[in-house]
Amino acid sequence: MRNVKLTIEYDGTSYQGWQVQGESPTVQKALEEAIRRVVQHPVRVIGSGRTDTGVHALGQAASFFTSSQIPEKDLAHAINACLPRDIAVLSAQDAPPDFHARYSATGKTYRYTILNRDIRSPLLRNYAWHLRSALEVDKMIAASKHLIGEHDFQAFRSKASDEMSSVRTITRLDVARRDSLIEIHVSANGFLYNMVRAIAGTLVQAGTGRIQPEDVKRILDSRNRSLAGPTAPARGLCLLAVEYPTRSSG
Amino acid sequence: MRNVKLTIEYDGTSYQGWQVQGESPTVQKALEEAIRRVVQHPVRVIGSGRTDTGVHALGQAASFFTSSQIPEKDLAHAINACLPRDIAVLSAQDAPPDFHARYSATGKTYRYTILNRDIRSPLLRNYAWHLRSALEVDKMIAASKHLIGEHDFQAFRSKASDEMSSVRTITRLDVARRDSLIEIHVSANGFLYNMVRAIAGTLVQAGTGRIQPEDVKRILDSRNRSLAGPTAPARGLCLLAVEYPTRSSG
Repeated sequence: MRNVKLTIEYDGTSYQGWQVQGESPTVQKALEEAIRRVVQHPVRVIGSGRTDTGVHALGQAASFFTSSQIPEKDLAHAINACLPRDIAVLSAQDAPPDFHARYSATGKTYRYTILNRDIRSPLLRNYAWHLRSALEVDKMIAASKHLIGEHDFQAFRSKASDEMSSVRTITRLDVARRDSLIEIHVSANGFLYNMVRAIAGTLVQAGTGRIQPEDVKRILDSRNRSLAGPTAPARGLCLLAVEYPTRSSG
Repeated sequence: MRNVKLTIEYDGTSYQGWQVQGESPTVQKALEEAIRRVVQHPVRVIGSGRTDTGVHALGQAASFFTSSQIPEKDLAHAINACLPRDIAVLSAQDAPPDFHARYSATGKTYRYTILNRDIRSPLLRNYAWHLRSALEVDKMIAASKHLIGEHDFQAFRSKASDEMSSVRTITRLDVARRDSLIEIHVSANGFLYNMVRAIAGTLVQAGTGRIQPEDVKRILDSRNRSLAGPTAPARGLCLLAVEYPTRSSG
């Protein structure tokens, strides 16, 4: 059996997230149906992790086993021909047998987008969190500094999390304004459930002055979810990339 | 009666263009229905010009007459509360009685977006023309130079055009690549029907080498639509701005 690694872009607006759940339309389900038509046998697609309803991806990673002999170079196009317009395989590459999209991952990068202006944007309606009150980006940046590095992110996880440890290492956390858009880029060796959205919600509270930047340190130490900001809406979130060790990325 | 000038953003994907036509969903119709609910009387919204099915706008301009006394500062929010998510009024300002969104316009700027890579993009599926074959942007730029200035653009209009003269002045025509995106920005004192899309289709032919950049001069001189490139798809087109003389823009 071949193990194939996929890189996937999708618009999550019309899906009940990544993970197959019954008859609901999910990205995983759409992929499994498309790949099944191409390789002519049922497959299970393993994602690097779930994304929630409405969350997008420019570089989700996944893998599946197949007995198909379709050349590697033709696989992406063949699968794309069977996928809806809001999902596409950007690349399909043979991977080592022990490559596992979830367990081999060593890091991920997300982008969270905020539209900070008075009037909502029709063109960004599914791709940004619209906030009317002016945000002070300098304060958001100051707050973000406290989250970089290895910390216990218990205060930034939703209850649904089932991971044992809540310690993660954020290697990059950038906040930048471009006109009325504020983009948060965050890279870590792993993320707890809703962690990026809790971080975005907390940085926004720093940006509005509801909390002080240095309060973020206190929130981290508290390990208390109710002290951090609200979970920011899914539509502003996009999974940009999943990192793997060079040897196992195919 | 007050004359009110609007600046409007919309995602044209779900509309049969700007112009009211029977019962089809159009942007003009959606605006007229929303404004009617706000001002409590029927209105006719005059646009700066039509946009076709699937064409977007970040800065369409329009105007309407009303007897409503709603303060200028509250108008945009009131209308937006009655509009669907894919249309928004960015600003509503009182304008002089003789302001006419179409006849007062002195210029427009459009952006045409091309996605130039092997795999289609789910997130740009409604906002860019996907072209697989590599485009040489240098040749597109060289071709574009021949179109700048005052010319008879008969070869770049669709048959449906009903304007008398086909002479227009292009004041700006930029072509730039950013990763796999190629953006064409074009400003003129006016545009013929489908002119931007014919220009985009012709610049693409220069980019693929199907024509030479200097052929564009010959195509202009021919005044023959069949010599120019194909009409590029609507979804890549976005009306960025409409210019008015300072005194009549409210």
